[in-house]
Amino acid sequence: MSDLKLVSSNRCFDGEVRKYTHASSATGCKMTFNIFLPDTAISSKNKVPVLYYLSGLTCNEDNMITKGGAIPYLSEHQIALVTPDTSPRGAGVEGEDGDWEMGTGASFYVDATEEPWRANYKMYTYVQHELQQLVAESFSIDSSHTSIFGHSMGGHGALVLALRNPGHYRSASAFAPICHPTTSNWGRKQFAAYLGSNESEWAQYDATELVRSYNGPQLPILIDQGDADQFYSSEQLQPSHFVVASESGKHPVKLETRMQPGYDHSYWFIQTFMKDHISFHAKNLRE
Amino acid sequence: MSDLKLVSSNRCFDGEVRKYTHASSATGCKMTFNIFLPDTAISSKNKVPVLYYLSGLTCNEDNMITKGGAIPYLSEHQIALVTPDTSPRGAGVEGEDGDWEMGTGASFYVDATEEPWRANYKMYTYVQHELQQLVAESFSIDSSHTSIFGHSMGGHGALVLALRNPGHYRSASAFAPICHPTTSNWGRKQFAAYLGSNESEWAQYDATELVRSYNGPQLPILIDQGDADQFYSSEQLQPSHFVVASESGKHPVKLETRMQPGYDHSYWFIQTFMKDHISFHAKNLRE
Repeated sequence: MSDLKLVSSNRCFDGEVRKYTHASSATGCKMTFNIFLPDTAISSKNKVPVLYYLSGLTCNEDNMITKGGAIPYLSEHQIALVTPDTSPRGAGVEGEDGDWEMGTGASFYVDATEEPWRANYKMYTYVQHELQQLVAESFSIDSSHTSIFGHSMGGHGALVLALRNPGHYRSASAFAPICHPTTSNWGRKQFAAYLGSNESEWAQYDATELVRSYNGPQLPILIDQGDADQFYSSEQLQPSHFVVASESGKHPVKLETRMQPGYDHSYWFIQTFMKDHISFHAKNLRE
Repeated sequence: MSDLKLVSSNRCFDGEVRKYTHASSATGCKMTFNIFLPDTAISSKNKVPVLYYLSGLTCNEDNMITKGGAIPYLSEHQIALVTPDTSPRGAGVEGEDGDWEMGTGASFYVDATEEPWRANYKMYTYVQHELQQLVAESFSIDSSHTSIFGHSMGGHGALVLALRNPGHYRSASAFAPICHPTTSNWGRKQFAAYLGSNESEWAQYDATELVRSYNGPQLPILIDQGDADQFYSSEQLQPSHFVVASESGKHPVKLETRMQPGYDHSYWFIQTFMKDHISFHAKNLRE
């Protein structure tokens, strides 16, 4: 399926921000994403590198592209940005809209195996395969130069996708990611529902577990964490677990983790360090 | 009245974005504004220059500060930003919520003289006097270094406030401003309701009329207008009228107007040129 439909297009920083919908095989419903394309990818059809950004709980495809302050830097570096939604939406799954930590806006980017989720909540497959194939086919994108980043639940998603697909992404980064979801409430609650009670199935979606056994080309990773982040204080994020695990593997990733004094979990924090993240990816996408 | 109350504070670009409410004498209701303060104005109590931004129809105090991409440049230049609401809100005026072009979100920054608006819709007095006095008293602001800008209806407001108060603002700028409201539907409709049928009363809120008779120190003005802006095409904005009028006075303003090919009326347009506007004000605020 595809049925790609342009919903809107707005000129921005010598490029275009476009919203598209399409029919998704992975999720069995209509999905929406935004894409920023620099002019060179539109008029000259030059293939440009691409960055995927996965958003956090309660967000949709709009939050980061409207509030993240990314576009000036994407334009400067001539990189496309794709911002998917955070879950299927309106798929009609029972209970998907009753709890902000489950269902709509809360996919955790896994392929659900349990009822009632498993027919639609296949966001790992959607983002990693279906969407990236659709983008590669539809736009002047050099998909051999792809990187990924995200925030909170989307930071978890970005790290998991990068660690599970060695060589696919040139770099990964995250703002306040959920780093060890098999040991925090954000993670255990959703994995139990989406993946079932057999916890051995959960590790494939846990960045801290994955980084221990990572076996691939050296992966550059940048993580920023605010020390005034309430979800950091309540141990939902646990970046230190990821740091320790990243040093224990045989094929260590190239990790930089930065604590940012006074910053919280919001887009005010994200926009402050957006330039650094895009510069980081630009450097790795150029190599 | 004042009763200034901090609603929220978030760290952003080595400063803080804060939301406040306060009781307003001018509008007779609770008003809300956001302020960005660089650290130097918080910890060291150094007085910093201040920029006021007036938003457009349907907006509130949040649109620009979340979507305008201004804060990196404000932080770079160490300038505070104040974003007021666009009207009284919840004042209980009959009919204020039935039409997006009137009442709530649509004050046009005038002091209404007609019923049912005149008790509350005093946004000229609110922004020019009450709010600026409150900000000067409450924060480390150097109010002798104040500039103003805005978008659409707020661009109109910014130009009107600057032209009616010679010497008060160091510079004024606007994104797609309503330039000649006494001759466009956006303006005539609202002025008739807020100011009554005597059109001679309207000129005091019309930038094109005001710039003809401007008599004060040279005022630097920057205007950006997208040529794919539907409200430009439908002649609601009329920047050419303002350009012609600005050249006819005895004390001409220092006007730069730029047409931006392909850009529309949205915040995608505004964020693209935000850096230029803040650099423009920074230069004038330093002098």
